[in-house]
Amino acid sequence: MNAVVYGVGTSDFGKQRETTASDLAWTALSEVFDDAGVAAVDAIYVGSVFGEMGVAQRALHPFGLHDVPVIRVENACASGTTAFHEANAAITVGRYERVLVLGLEHMSRRVAGALPPEPRDPHGRAGLVLPALYAMAATRYMHDYGVTREQLAAVSVKNHAHALDNRRAQYGMRLTIGEVLASRPIADPLTLLQCSPVSDGAAAAILGPPRGGPRDVRVVACAMGSGGIWDHRSASVWGFQIVRDVARRAYELAGVEPDDIDLVECHDAFTIGEIVTCEALGLADQGKGAWLAASGETTLGGRVVVNPSGGLLSRGHPLGATGVAQVAEVVTQLRHEAGPRQVDDAEIGLVETMGGGVTGIDGNGCVVAVLRR
Amino acid sequence: MNAVVYGVGTSDFGKQRETTASDLAWTALSEVFDDAGVAAVDAIYVGSVFGEMGVAQRALHPFGLHDVPVIRVENACASGTTAFHEANAAITVGRYERVLVLGLEHMSRRVAGALPPEPRDPHGRAGLVLPALYAMAATRYMHDYGVTREQLAAVSVKNHAHALDNRRAQYGMRLTIGEVLASRPIADPLTLLQCSPVSDGAAAAILGPPRGGPRDVRVVACAMGSGGIWDHRSASVWGFQIVRDVARRAYELAGVEPDDIDLVECHDAFTIGEIVTCEALGLADQGKGAWLAASGETTLGGRVVVNPSGGLLSRGHPLGATGVAQVAEVVTQLRHEAGPRQVDDAEIGLVETMGGGVTGIDGNGCVVAVLRR
Repeated sequence: MNAVVYGVGTSDFGKQRETTASDLAWTALSEVFDDAGVAAVDAIYVGSVFGEMGVAQRALHPFGLHDVPVIRVENACASGTTAFHEANAAITVGRYERVLVLGLEHMSRRVAGALPPEPRDPHGRAGLVLPALYAMAATRYMHDYGVTREQLAAVSVKNHAHALDNRRAQYGMRLTIGEVLASRPIADPLTLLQCSPVSDGAAAAILGPPRGGPRDVRVVACAMGSGGIWDHRSASVWGFQIVRDVARRAYELAGVEPDDIDLVECHDAFTIGEIVTCEALGLADQGKGAWLAASGETTLGGRVVVNPSGGLLSRGHPLGATGVAQVAEVVTQLRHEAGPRQVDDAEIGLVETMGGGVTGIDGNGCVVAVLRR
Repeated sequence: MNAVVYGVGTSDFGKQRETTASDLAWTALSEVFDDAGVAAVDAIYVGSVFGEMGVAQRALHPFGLHDVPVIRVENACASGTTAFHEANAAITVGRYERVLVLGLEHMSRRVAGALPPEPRDPHGRAGLVLPALYAMAATRYMHDYGVTREQLAAVSVKNHAHALDNRRAQYGMRLTIGEVLASRPIADPLTLLQCSPVSDGAAAAILGPPRGGPRDVRVVACAMGSGGIWDHRSASVWGFQIVRDVARRAYELAGVEPDDIDLVECHDAFTIGEIVTCEALGLADQGKGAWLAASGETTLGGRVVVNPSGGLLSRGHPLGATGVAQVAEVVTQLRHEAGPRQVDDAEIGLVETMGGGVTGIDGNGCVVAVLRR
């Protein structure tokens, strides 16, 4: 039996220094219970990375959610989708009838710029923080496939334009390729506008078994895996083999092909990330992902719309909230309720998130879900 | 179908500043795979509170555990048993065949003394950190039931003596009531030796379906709940209603009564904690828990042995590792492999952990498991 998403909700995404994680959760929780049309849940999975001990209980208690099992999970940038994965499994096996997934993260008082490496992380000490790793991948990828800086920047232009129609997004902007390339360099060839920002936000979803609700959206697959990326022994160190492997399992479970997907919310923490992830998801051949955004194929109105919400680059990337916000976007699209950013005739949507330690070398988690109208 | 514990493992517990969480995990992982006699697992649940983003993946990757779903959970002091709860559920519903539970925490480089409240926690700002809350509960409890300081201290004497026979314990000591009461005051009436220490440690268990292994131990119940404690509207603010409720469900699931329990590993973060928890677990009537340790009933050789490992007070309390270490102790006892601290004829054991935010007011999680030889 597939689980069904009954409802979704989000807070605003952005730097909101005068709020707390609990404040943001309140907004998302208010929305999700209204939207799902349920009054109570049997268990709660919460994705949060930087929240203090007990952050989940603290955010839920004022809302009156304090009598059911609360399980906070952390899986770096994939924390929200890991919570979703566990909730989905709990429904499909019949453990619970109603499960709430909450993603929340308040980063702006904790982090400025790149996520700081842990003091004893040898890769971090060597300077291999995430922007540097993605930059190295971008450099090698550009060299091997004749990709240009302009093609990288096109991802940023597309996603910032998508975010203009998302009132919850952090940075909706009409940009040119030149403006993206002229923004402050972070780790060459990546400029500021090619890196996801520091964000605060919350997102929520309620899942249950099928109930015949006309707005309910089916979760036809949710696969999860772990593994290293940036493997220097591999001929394609930028290749995100883990995403390829997990996506293959998700497509099998869902009984669909990459060509069947109408829209994707994926992990564009950096522009190069969206490009190699689209390849790993089978939306383009290896080495051809850079042509997707540049040609308009993944822009609203194109063949397969990637990150109609604005993605991590432009909607924002509050780590634990991101995966649940991706689910919320896909659900809204599959209900045909996305307003000015609606993907025409959206029937099948895909969510992909990848998370790892600060340097991303030692271990990563990846979740791919396929949802269907 | 009940899940079965195939094997357990732990690191040393104590202040180990020159180690990392990954170092401690390595020891526990080496032991648990040897002990369980399995070579691989299908999923991994990791309990850890203070570990950085990706701490779970980072600890598992060097051990070659990087191809399966890794889900890190945080539920304050109950993080380890929350991970155990999720692993147990995954086995009982048939999601996986082999699941690893790992608890790990490296605290000594992060925390000195009481856990610090979050900057925006109103209770913490008012001074209501955990030692203060437990002290207030102890004061009221002593007043209402005519309990003495000496009876509180007897819990510390018992658990430090138990820890003498546990080579992994942090503080095995032969103490007198007078020495406990004469130790440095922390929050009156609680003295230093009545408070669990800052600890580093790791513990692990591998679960699966029954396989007929002669040393395997059955998990006949694992219940989990959430809720506030320290409810000022209650006539018994020290009463730990949440433990009472979750324990009742665990006893029902297991089909046993409190009188059937041979040994208990419970959440003695402070001496008063063990006393009220024993009442909530049905081992003594309300107001009579303080007579258990003082009379020797819960000492090794007594009617029902409480915290034969030394408990949080003496084995140590590395938050995320604690619940898994409790499971490891009960499994070892039920196998009759506990050596000098073996509980005679141990057939049924109980694990209880409670965790909340730093102040414990807003929300708490509680897990109670019953294991059977």
